[in-house]
Amino acid sequence: MITHTVAFKLKHPAGSAAEREFLAKGCRLAEIDGVENFRCLRQISQKNPYDFNFSMQFADQSAYDHYNQHPDHQNFVQNVWLPEVADFLEADFVEMENGLPSPAQEN
Amino acid sequence: MITHTVAFKLKHPAGSAAEREFLAKGCRLAEIDGVENFRCLRQISQKNPYDFNFSMQFADQSAYDHYNQHPDHQNFVQNVWLPEVADFLEADFVEMENGLPSPAQEN
Repeated sequence: MITHTVAFKLKHPAGSAAEREFLAKGCRLAEIDGVENFRCLRQISQKNPYDFNFSMQFADQSAYDHYNQHPDHQNFVQNVWLPEVADFLEADFVEMENGLPSPAQEN
Repeated sequence: MITHTVAFKLKHPAGSAAEREFLAKGCRLAEIDGVENFRCLRQISQKNPYDFNFSMQFADQSAYDHYNQHPDHQNFVQNVWLPEVADFLEADFVEMENGLPSPAQEN
């Protein structure tokens, strides 16, 4: 299981209709085959520069690749994300074996 | 429900005993009252500068404050986190109403 997240802030004013429309479009990424546990979150720590976060899970790298290459995702990136997002940071997470990295795992 | 996360990289070499010891100590933060769904994750995106992520949930701000002020947490921060972490970024998340920000919410 891979957890894929992206924290972001928008060019739109907080509370604007354009903000809500962007988020509504983003949340529809949940409908792409293989996307699990999609969450559309508000980021509230003042120690962090981003305002929102999309989080989703994939069973494996193949499901993740399918999402990345899906026309609905690519259309969203080109026509909604790139024009409307001011800054962002992606992060992907996997569980560690026994909650800890393996001694053999050296990157 | 508040999801509290911190992405970080360590001063220790990848795969080292010191790395495993740090993570084992960090995972014991899960034992503090009010900490729910603690996850000790590896960050794997090459688009992100951090190697690990602790994620946990709190029922409300009161539980979060209790954790922040707990002696076990404060001892960990002073004696383990600050000496051994090279860089980090905190992020806190809440669900949005109906999956979208309220029109009245203007920060």
